[in-house]
Amino acid sequence: MSNSSVSPQKLANAIRALAMDSIQKAKSGHPGMPLGMADIAVALWTRHLRHNPKDPKWLGRDRFILSNGHGSMLQYALLHLTGYDLSMDDLKSFRQLHSRTPGHPEVGVTPGVETSTGPLGQGIANGIGMALAEKMLAAEFNRPGFPVINNRTYVFLGDGCLMEGVSHEACSLAGVWQLGKLVAFYDDNGISIDGNVKGWFGDDTRKRFEAYGWNVIGPIDGHSIDAVDQAINEAESQSEKPTLIICKTTIGKGSPKFQGTSKVHGAPLGDEEIAAAKKALGWEYGPFEIPQDVYDAFDARATGEKLEADYQKMFDGYAAAYPELASELKRRIAGDLPANYAETVAQAVEAAEKAAESVATRKASQKALSAICPKLPETLGGSADLTSSNLTNWEGVTAFGTDNLAGRHISYGVREFGMSAIMNGIALYGGFIPFGATFLTFSDYAKNAIRMAALMQIRSIFVYTHDSIGVGEDGPTHQPIEQTASLRLIPGLDVWRPCDTVEAAVAWGCAFEKKNGPSALIFSRQSVPFLHQAGAKADLIRKGGYILTDAESPKAVIVATGTEVSLGSAIQEKLAEEGIAVRLVSMPCTERFDAQDAAYRESVLPAGLPVLTIEAGSTELWYKYTRGNGASLGIDQFGASAPASKLWPLFGLTVENGVARVKDLLH
Amino acid sequence: MSNSSVSPQKLANAIRALAMDSIQKAKSGHPGMPLGMADIAVALWTRHLRHNPKDPKWLGRDRFILSNGHGSMLQYALLHLTGYDLSMDDLKSFRQLHSRTPGHPEVGVTPGVETSTGPLGQGIANGIGMALAEKMLAAEFNRPGFPVINNRTYVFLGDGCLMEGVSHEACSLAGVWQLGKLVAFYDDNGISIDGNVKGWFGDDTRKRFEAYGWNVIGPIDGHSIDAVDQAINEAESQSEKPTLIICKTTIGKGSPKFQGTSKVHGAPLGDEEIAAAKKALGWEYGPFEIPQDVYDAFDARATGEKLEADYQKMFDGYAAAYPELASELKRRIAGDLPANYAETVAQAVEAAEKAAESVATRKASQKALSAICPKLPETLGGSADLTSSNLTNWEGVTAFGTDNLAGRHISYGVREFGMSAIMNGIALYGGFIPFGATFLTFSDYAKNAIRMAALMQIRSIFVYTHDSIGVGEDGPTHQPIEQTASLRLIPGLDVWRPCDTVEAAVAWGCAFEKKNGPSALIFSRQSVPFLHQAGAKADLIRKGGYILTDAESPKAVIVATGTEVSLGSAIQEKLAEEGIAVRLVSMPCTERFDAQDAAYRESVLPAGLPVLTIEAGSTELWYKYTRGNGASLGIDQFGASAPASKLWPLFGLTVENGVARVKDLLH
Repeated sequence: MSNSSVSPQKLANAIRALAMDSIQKAKSGHPGMPLGMADIAVALWTRHLRHNPKDPKWLGRDRFILSNGHGSMLQYALLHLTGYDLSMDDLKSFRQLHSRTPGHPEVGVTPGVETSTGPLGQGIANGIGMALAEKMLAAEFNRPGFPVINNRTYVFLGDGCLMEGVSHEACSLAGVWQLGKLVAFYDDNGISIDGNVKGWFGDDTRKRFEAYGWNVIGPIDGHSIDAVDQAINEAESQSEKPTLIICKTTIGKGSPKFQGTSKVHGAPLGDEEIAAAKKALGWEYGPFEIPQDVYDAFDARATGEKLEADYQKMFDGYAAAYPELASELKRRIAGDLPANYAETVAQAVEAAEKAAESVATRKASQKALSAICPKLPETLGGSADLTSSNLTNWEGVTAFGTDNLAGRHISYGVREFGMSAIMNGIALYGGFIPFGATFLTFSDYAKNAIRMAALMQIRSIFVYTHDSIGVGEDGPTHQPIEQTASLRLIPGLDVWRPCDTVEAAVAWGCAFEKKNGPSALIFSRQSVPFLHQAGAKADLIRKGGYILTDAESPKAVIVATGTEVSLGSAIQEKLAEEGIAVRLVSMPCTERFDAQDAAYRESVLPAGLPVLTIEAGSTELWYKYTRGNGASLGIDQFGASAPASKLWPLFGLTVENGVARVKDLLH
Repeated sequence: MSNSSVSPQKLANAIRALAMDSIQKAKSGHPGMPLGMADIAVALWTRHLRHNPKDPKWLGRDRFILSNGHGSMLQYALLHLTGYDLSMDDLKSFRQLHSRTPGHPEVGVTPGVETSTGPLGQGIANGIGMALAEKMLAAEFNRPGFPVINNRTYVFLGDGCLMEGVSHEACSLAGVWQLGKLVAFYDDNGISIDGNVKGWFGDDTRKRFEAYGWNVIGPIDGHSIDAVDQAINEAESQSEKPTLIICKTTIGKGSPKFQGTSKVHGAPLGDEEIAAAKKALGWEYGPFEIPQDVYDAFDARATGEKLEADYQKMFDGYAAAYPELASELKRRIAGDLPANYAETVAQAVEAAEKAAESVATRKASQKALSAICPKLPETLGGSADLTSSNLTNWEGVTAFGTDNLAGRHISYGVREFGMSAIMNGIALYGGFIPFGATFLTFSDYAKNAIRMAALMQIRSIFVYTHDSIGVGEDGPTHQPIEQTASLRLIPGLDVWRPCDTVEAAVAWGCAFEKKNGPSALIFSRQSVPFLHQAGAKADLIRKGGYILTDAESPKAVIVATGTEVSLGSAIQEKLAEEGIAVRLVSMPCTERFDAQDAAYRESVLPAGLPVLTIEAGSTELWYKYTRGNGASLGIDQFGASAPASKLWPLFGLTVENGVARVKDLLH
């Protein structure tokens, strides 16, 4: 930034050289994008990006996202050159085990990486979530003269991101939300893996984004650093609309043999071609060699420290003038819950126990939210256009909109994937705990964003209602069968399926508490009996599986979840009438139960006792608990359109059937 | 169509009346859309749609798709009124168990329903698949004077479909593919479930679709039947571009109290409001009462029979002039395989056995395709921009494009969901067996379309390569863990994970053969040893699980799939060296194995013998086979970026570990 004697082109070539060298050393990687976007990166990173390499978590920093994450070496090169704690040895360890430079950018692994990318289209959606969080937090916390929340969000993306449907969902919302501080750079190189995109990607992208209400600049020459610089200035001269800068580039720019072709996308160039490229670029240095003038020109440490020092001074003034706001902001950004949080949840549980209401579990969820959210100001709810069905709007909450930035419930429209990826961006920015809902069946639409939340270990909370054939008349397209099981397969995701108001309150309590990972909360459309007459069991519920009602010397165990716990209870009663003692275990969260020690698990499910599991969905995951000595009531085929009362017997989920199955197990 | 004395408005009101009555009787359903789109429906169905109610499968028919499937009563009313085998009693059984009028349209249940809809955005994608199939089959089979394939595809869709990302993916392709015989009607009523869409859906849809290269008409008055009629004429006057007709409508048109609000979307109106609506509409008849003049005006049977008779006459001429083409077309449309198909597969298997090549299973897949596809002209491959990685392009195939309609491999671009939903449309049209590929991790992006293929019982074949940590350096975003298990949970989907060239050939053979359901084929990036030295086992492989190599008096069984079968083989050998006899079972398709009789399953996995399962992914589904007496080698956490050779030991997938686990089981 300081040394003006180095040509910007040389800086771009430094990125290219590092990318080529690292990929070659790793014998694996994607040179096409870093070579193509190097000039854009130089314009942004040396002339605009406000960041402090010494403090990658500085609250005032601009956010930078590589939505085309396969170009990771571009970002690693930038982080290294500008002074982050990412050494040349780290670059030499590109794509090696336990290195800080994995194949695709991973948040939490590399300082300066804001989100994990690679699955295309989600990075831009994450960025939109970050820009939304920035806008909402700014409205909540900033005060005249104290813009404590004030940053831009920059996103690099490519043809792949723009082809993916999630880009449509998220970018459409960014337009409606008027995210004027979001700037996206489209690497318009006309090439994807299958070749020239003409045969499969004919969008007029300018027109498309204008249709979303974006400010579109370009096409400009993406290899003209000045043109990019000028476009960024233009983007930043307005504040109403998100900006897309369309940058015409040559993929693999600099590789004489491969540039402009798909051959340069995803494989090392080879020593010979690297030599040729370096020669063509006028880059005279050895592998992994960066001259001091380049380092000096990139070095953002001094300016970064000054930026942060200035910010800190401003923040100190803010803290003096608004001490409560400042401390609240700090708490929110740190992701810490309020001091009275445990009490809040305990009160919600107690209220549920006292009210003893028999309601649909989605209603139970709403009651829990109404008890907790008013005391947890970081909650930010939402629904993919099913608010009145999902019941994620709690008592007193208002709808978010550009005319109501204080609204804490977002109508995301019919965009399950976009919603989920945006929630991930909100969670990554911090200051909010996002939750968003749709029907359980349509968790399918958002599957990879749920996975990404688990991989990134972030606190996104996915709410799914209408969780079984209990949906009734809407039929098999709307009746989940395999979805609950499918969610349980995602490593690190806690999947809760509460049986009543008490379990719903505990589940929400646990989900909000789980700082380093996502949860999915699964609720019913139909009403179920209240089951916790026996008194407070909150601590047991938190274990994920527990004895709800025991019997003396039980001969078998019924394990059930959600709305089927009441069915299990009825079966238990019926068997008791016949003199057969059976234990009833409620298992709202198998992940939590599995995490308990062996002694506890054995105390709930003693070896030798046969087990009947009951869940109105796939039985495939229940063999883990029947262990060769049990049976499962469930549904392993698609549902049907009919009143729910007709469906339960159709699929065998009846007291009679349960009683018969337990007796079978005892014979 | 014939009786011009009935006003078209009255026809539209008949639809409205039937929709209100049926929904009221069912106490469940969605009146908003049928009331809003009734006029559009009258314009299309009485003035343009070419169909024959007496023969819903007539090859020459236009295709009609309700992408906003919650408005199912609109379609049922139309089918009833125009003379399909759908009685008034059927309408009275709307949403009841085993009725022909389920909550959302289901193909195979109701005559005249072309695809199952409800999950938004997929109907339009199915329609695009149908229009593509029509275009490609027309190019292949039509001859001068004999347009044996020649129909239009009409799609109704709403705001929800347009918000969904899959609409972006599919409609972008429709533009590139110049599907000029596709006409979509956008029910632009400005209302979605959460209310007025302004707060979450601000797209300029005209501009958006122009950006895709569509012909956009409107906004027009969607309640002016003449205006809609005229727009359809305009759409059909050009053949280069798909058409979107934007129809401004009032949701729930006719309901005095609720029209124009989200209240009318998804609940019965109530007797009182229905009476008020009928009065306002001037509809003087009782519930489920349709006057004869309305029936007469809608009745499409005579014209339909004439259309089909004319078509048949033309087809007979075609059959006389081109007997081979005609019989081939009939075969293709019937979905029957060529007479020599079994032989073709047998030859492919034999060739694989002879060649005995140790290759990546994705390469094994390509070899199978190269052996089978040239003899199976209905195969239509494709990839979501990963052709050179997925290897779905077989020897001799050319790339599909508007300049090469004979190409049989489609580059779908980076659009996994769109590709899959389009494939479903192609399969529904018939004449092709579509298969399409991406990386296994990104099956997540397409999840609901895979489910829909299973629900519809259609022959879409989903190909997933890069199936484990064997991917290596690309890291956890690209390494599937839970995906194979997650696919296995979908009812009716056969999931194949072959271990070598022989199993790959059999798997492809079975997938092409499975007329009434989809398959997923899962292949590796990395090479594996050839394992079928022992000779032909094709018949056993078809059983889904079989003894690959046995031992005398085995003490335990190793069950493995895909690339881990060779690991199991190495473990078996090592144990044999130590005098421990172990059986090796290859289980390429658990669904097929589960479908075998108990005796066969017991012969492969005898009760009492401990089982070690090996698969480089989630272990959660393997408890079914270990039955309380076994263990699983697998991965229940996310992967890591590193050369694959480092990852196998990191996750414990080694010979040493397998040997130790088997020994543990025997102690």
